[in-house]
Amino acid sequence: MTDCWVEGAAGSLFDVDNLPWGVFSLPGEEPRVGVRIGDLVLDVAPVAAAEMLDSHHVFQEPSLNALMAEGRQVRASLRTWLTGLLTDETERDLVEPHLLPLGEVTLHLPVEVADYVDFYASLDHASNVGKMFRPDAEPLLPNWKHLPVGYHGRAGTVVPSGTDVVRPCGQRKAPTEDSPSYGASRRLDIEAELGFVVGTGSALGSRVAVADFADHVFGVVGLNDWSARDIQAWEYVPLGPFLGKSFATSISHWVTPLEALDAAWCDLPGQDPEPLAYLAPGSARGLDIAVEVELDGEVVSRPPYSSMYWSPAQMLAHMTVNGASLRTGDLVASGTISGAERDQRGSLLELGWGGQEPFTAAGRERTFLEDGDTVTLRYTAPGTRGGRIALGEVTGTIVPALD
Amino acid sequence: MTDCWVEGAAGSLFDVDNLPWGVFSLPGEEPRVGVRIGDLVLDVAPVAAAEMLDSHHVFQEPSLNALMAEGRQVRASLRTWLTGLLTDETERDLVEPHLLPLGEVTLHLPVEVADYVDFYASLDHASNVGKMFRPDAEPLLPNWKHLPVGYHGRAGTVVPSGTDVVRPCGQRKAPTEDSPSYGASRRLDIEAELGFVVGTGSALGSRVAVADFADHVFGVVGLNDWSARDIQAWEYVPLGPFLGKSFATSISHWVTPLEALDAAWCDLPGQDPEPLAYLAPGSARGLDIAVEVELDGEVVSRPPYSSMYWSPAQMLAHMTVNGASLRTGDLVASGTISGAERDQRGSLLELGWGGQEPFTAAGRERTFLEDGDTVTLRYTAPGTRGGRIALGEVTGTIVPALD
Repeated sequence: MTDCWVEGAAGSLFDVDNLPWGVFSLPGEEPRVGVRIGDLVLDVAPVAAAEMLDSHHVFQEPSLNALMAEGRQVRASLRTWLTGLLTDETERDLVEPHLLPLGEVTLHLPVEVADYVDFYASLDHASNVGKMFRPDAEPLLPNWKHLPVGYHGRAGTVVPSGTDVVRPCGQRKAPTEDSPSYGASRRLDIEAELGFVVGTGSALGSRVAVADFADHVFGVVGLNDWSARDIQAWEYVPLGPFLGKSFATSISHWVTPLEALDAAWCDLPGQDPEPLAYLAPGSARGLDIAVEVELDGEVVSRPPYSSMYWSPAQMLAHMTVNGASLRTGDLVASGTISGAERDQRGSLLELGWGGQEPFTAAGRERTFLEDGDTVTLRYTAPGTRGGRIALGEVTGTIVPALD
Repeated sequence: MTDCWVEGAAGSLFDVDNLPWGVFSLPGEEPRVGVRIGDLVLDVAPVAAAEMLDSHHVFQEPSLNALMAEGRQVRASLRTWLTGLLTDETERDLVEPHLLPLGEVTLHLPVEVADYVDFYASLDHASNVGKMFRPDAEPLLPNWKHLPVGYHGRAGTVVPSGTDVVRPCGQRKAPTEDSPSYGASRRLDIEAELGFVVGTGSALGSRVAVADFADHVFGVVGLNDWSARDIQAWEYVPLGPFLGKSFATSISHWVTPLEALDAAWCDLPGQDPEPLAYLAPGSARGLDIAVEVELDGEVVSRPPYSSMYWSPAQMLAHMTVNGASLRTGDLVASGTISGAERDQRGSLLELGWGGQEPFTAAGRERTFLEDGDTVTLRYTAPGTRGGRIALGEVTGTIVPALD
């Protein structure tokens, strides 16, 4: 194991066992593909061209989609190639001119999102929401432990980390009110999630088995599924969340390739009843990823991804069991990550128990998001070199509603 | 008003007051844009190039998206130009070599679908489904008359008319069963709908007013939202339909431009209670479009689009009221079109009342779709020349499940 020669990278959260992919631009130039190492971005295209890589054209694209479509083998060999470049001192003269300080580049939405599916895979989150939205019924609906519940979200409003979020307007009706009123959401919330990005699609009429997850998924992004709880609560029967979610979903600039998570796989908490055969966990496992929810500079929650009930591979198998095809760029989100403890909850709805049990952040009592609030989600996982790696963080600031 | 000189077009359902857009190919050639006139397809690109139209490049594309993105003014002036070409005998020598018999071309998916949203705008359909899915409760949920209920579907599985539909597998659980089982859907259904295709997008954080509908919508397609009722009934709480719908949605090859429907606008049946101001119907109106549902060669239903409760313009205003952006290629479907009478119902679920009241088609008693069934949806509307125009028909045949 040779150390990375890039200044400050070895032993950092962005060492050569991380190497996330993103899309950057320099002033006056078109966006293209980069790889993060330490606090620098490697401009891959000129290096790949100099080394006459077959796939060098994919690095000139304004999204990762062409790269992702190359498939698992290409992704793995590029990772080996990059690791060589960044650990072999003799490559330094070739590579160093193409390392750009993060502060000098603009980062963009890394993926052209095809379809966006959002699951609901945390037992604690689903139970908490059930208790609040349906107080007179069993918190967990009868289907929840038999299949990973999910729905389609709006792909066109997936935005990159750093994009301001305009407080949405819409119809809201409290249970105590006779009729709905129009106005800005009063219960604006976050959902701390992880997103899985599809690289290799699948044909209409075929299925992706649990065991074939890594043949289709390229990597992982941080994801904040902004939610207007008052709009959602009024609209969501019987066809599910719509405008309460569709105004914005933020994802990280960086896509962590699946191989960087090789040391992060862990056992699932356990599934009872045993799922039907097509969902049998088999080799499907959980991910030991630590999440931090920061509100106005203070960490208010640390949801553990390892507590998720359904594995990512089960989600992908479920969403294709009816023959639905996958496309390069499909984004599959986990749903809110919440652990069993109060300080492990991944939404303000749960942290403040629907506004009834305010919590404290940065010295102030809080329930839902206020204008000017900034939320940042951070994710780390065990790396393959013994330390930890950082996944792409995702941040956003609430700006006032229109009108 | 000069007659169309194309053989058989004048007075037909595809006269110059129709002129739907589509994408076709000839053997060994790339797909490109065509316009239907009579039983012929006009290969637009060479004619537009010969006449040096500014927008001639958009006709070389394999989808209508570039053409649709040109906006309302270009769409209208192209319509005027085409009408001139096809009614002025002196243009015949220029145009005639580029008229291709329908039987000699292959038709393709006309639109690269961005996001797909499906509404639920028929009062009779929503009431019928409510009675069957929630027999112990009010059929119409409290929000239904206050907002057009809708949800996001899967854009990646929108397929062109004529594509076979593989019977989907998944989890089903009848109310009388203790636990779900895996297998092929036993309650496979259609939904006869109309789809509206967005040409001109809108910015994130902005809204599309009811009055601005025609500035954004390019045209209309026939749409069959295939549905597996058993899968849907088990999965749909609380996040809405997912795998019960995501296996296939068929749309017509032809997109009827909005201008062809100028004579089809009609009053809405009436809305009570009055909707909130952002949904105030104003100039928003219904569409007098006649629909025919044909099962195995027999018309089993004639749903009237004029019976729809919510107008298309209200649907578009609602889905953007939270600031969600529109993109070229967004597909917005009406939801199942059902009238008040039994022979006006737009799904087999309603025609056979959940399997309890079988109906007859082609001499046989029927409930849900059987393998080998072919369903064809046909649509006509008043044209601007006094006769009728045909919108794009949509057809599909059920093939057996995998395994």
